[in-house]
Amino acid sequence: MQKNRLEALTDGIYAIIITIMVLELRVPHDPTIESYIDMWPVFASYAVSFLFVGLNWASHHHLFHTVTKVSNSVLWINMLNLFILSLVPFATATMGENSFKAITVTIYGSLLTISIVVYLILVNLLCRTHGANSAFSQQFKGHKKTYLSIVLNSIAIVISMIGFPKIAFSLLVVISLAWFIPNHVFEES
Amino acid sequence: MQKNRLEALTDGIYAIIITIMVLELRVPHDPTIESYIDMWPVFASYAVSFLFVGLNWASHHHLFHTVTKVSNSVLWINMLNLFILSLVPFATATMGENSFKAITVTIYGSLLTISIVVYLILVNLLCRTHGANSAFSQQFKGHKKTYLSIVLNSIAIVISMIGFPKIAFSLLVVISLAWFIPNHVFEES
Amino acid sequence: MQKNRLEALTDGIYAIIITIMVLELRVPHDPTIESYIDMWPVFASYAVSFLFVGLNWASHHHLFHTVTKVSNSVLWINMLNLFILSLVPFATATMGENSFKAITVTIYGSLLTISIVVYLILVNLLCRTHGANSAFSQQFKGHKKTYLSIVLNSIAIVISMIGFPKIAFSLLVVISLAWFIPNHVFEES
Amino acid sequence: MQKNRLEALTDGIYAIIITIMVLELRVPHDPTIESYIDMWPVFASYAVSFLFVGLNWASHHHLFHTVTKVSNSVLWINMLNLFILSLVPFATATMGENSFKAITVTIYGSLLTISIVVYLILVNLLCRTHGANSAFSQQFKGHKKTYLSIVLNSIAIVISMIGFPKIAFSLLVVISLAWFIPNHVFEES
Repeated sequence: MQKNRLEALTDGIYAIIITIMVLELRVPHDPTIESYIDMWPVFASYAVSFLFVGLNWASHHHLFHTVTKVSNSVLWINMLNLFILSLVPFATATMGENSFKAITVTIYGSLLTISIVVYLILVNLLCRTHGANSAFSQQFKGHKKTYLSIVLNSIAIVISMIGFPKIAFSLLVVISLAWFIPNHVFEES
Repeated sequence: MQKNRLEALTDGIYAIIITIMVLELRVPHDPTIESYIDMWPVFASYAVSFLFVGLNWASHHHLFHTVTKVSNSVLWINMLNLFILSLVPFATATMGENSFKAITVTIYGSLLTISIVVYLILVNLLCRTHGANSAFSQQFKGHKKTYLSIVLNSIAIVISMIGFPKIAFSLLVVISLAWFIPNHVFEES
Repeated sequence: MQKNRLEALTDGIYAIIITIMVLELRVPHDPTIESYIDMWPVFASYAVSFLFVGLNWASHHHLFHTVTKVSNSVLWINMLNLFILSLVPFATATMGENSFKAITVTIYGSLLTISIVVYLILVNLLCRTHGANSAFSQQFKGHKKTYLSIVLNSIAIVISMIGFPKIAFSLLVVISLAWFIPNHVFEES
Repeated sequence: MQKNRLEALTDGIYAIIITIMVLELRVPHDPTIESYIDMWPVFASYAVSFLFVGLNWASHHHLFHTVTKVSNSVLWINMLNLFILSLVPFATATMGENSFKAITVTIYGSLLTISIVVYLILVNLLCRTHGANSAFSQQFKGHKKTYLSIVLNSIAIVISMIGFPKIAFSLLVVISLAWFIPNHVFEES
């Protein structure tokens, strides 16, 4: 199996997921400065989801750059990854239009967490496909940052469930931004 | 004719078909746990269509990987395949928003069946283009799994028409999942 | 300038234009067989536009396959071509939802005609870029089929303006289908 | 890091941004010539945004054609560029549907200006990545046209804020059209 066409479909789906979210920014009728300011939950939700999907794509890009073998299982875990991500626009819009109501943030946080777990499964599957001693596995084994994200995201979900959704959302933002810290900072600690 | 650009357009259209379906997940206003649970027909319809279009793409990917010649007829049967698939988001949304009403499942099942028939025509055309003794034809001739899908899908359509749409939909799901069973299991039986 | 990336953007835009039209197929609420039958103008409009954009892409694909030089003017005439085509979903939906009302067919026919004219300009520009004696110009010079389409489309526009929009639409369909007749049939006559 | 896949995602996102704007052209119910004419602010907004995003893509295309090295910072400034551009469909639709109301033109102009500034940051970052004496930096250093656009766009924003939004919009159109004048005209003056 070729990895090229899998990358092409995957990039197409990432590009569409990241862009159709903007369709949920509903045009205000007879807008005033206040009407734009009132839309801040919608804009903030959009910006964070753009960041999250972008980070996810960047990780995928690094991962597949090193990949040399693609199996049928890899194809389908990759599809599962895209399926989970394809629900992000829906969860984002629900959260934005309901001003971070607790249940919407809980579902949004859960979706991001599931997405990281599926990504972890994809990495592990690729490590197994390439062999434990392959260059691929040497580079991608160990995921302190990934495990830490899952734990912190779970805490955010709980914080939202017990009634502090805006704090939970802020935590989700911080966790996403932390992905810009290079891997080795986490590995060496 | 080059197969690269045909693959590029085809992948683009697959990526869009699979992703725009998510736009039909309408944002609930002032959502509660119940409002999400009540949306299950919409989510289930989306998930099954994502799976079906994904399977279709995976088959197309395997097929064109082996293809060495693309004629004008291949281009247009491929377009017909994409046209039929492009109606899936509409049929999916109609079925989901009307909670599996019989007529919507009948139409959904018919669309999936037509799509498999068109795919079969595409395979046969490619076999003829490459010659009966080509490596291509050796690999793709015989389609027990495909013919079985068409028969079982037709049964599902009848079950829906006589008034059991949810059973029909479940059968469509099972048939799709059966595509994960490797070809040779069917061929050797 | 590379032709690859221009092809990539162009294919992306074609794929999106051809697919987003399906978003205009509005989901019927509590559908019956009659409600699907009543939607025939919407389906017919969609099918014809899918065919037209598909034909346009196929021509573009043949054209750029032979292209060896891309100038800045080619880039922008290509963009103009995509701009005109990007209005097709709007014209299609307006025509479908208003059951072929005369003004909507007139505008739809005009758009298709403008699109063929822009395509002709693109071909002529490419012929000039490659030189009159180039392999490119030998293959693409002379456009009896194209000129005939423009004349017949113009007749369809007039037929629609004087109050027979459904006849005009049928003529547009026939003209599109005639593109499947190979070029040399027209050239030799 | 490969530049190919970054280009692929970027082209996908450009293609979608440029095309989904057309979804904001709402189908008139029972249309007359007048109803089309009344839509002119929507069409004009769409046409100008298509031109602006197209120009932006053409610049990006020239830029990355010459790029030889892509760093992580380049990836993320490129993402920021796409994020800003992804808001253009929203700003376009708001401006079109509110017939160039002052606040909508102010926000539209601001978005275009921010987008040019981000593009400038991207160019400077790429110049630093390639080294001041590289072929890349020789070709792209100095941006009289870019700086001039930022200044003139800012004037347009002020004109809109003090209550002449249609004049401001016309100025934005003129500035965009000026990008068709080759670079060296500005450099030599």
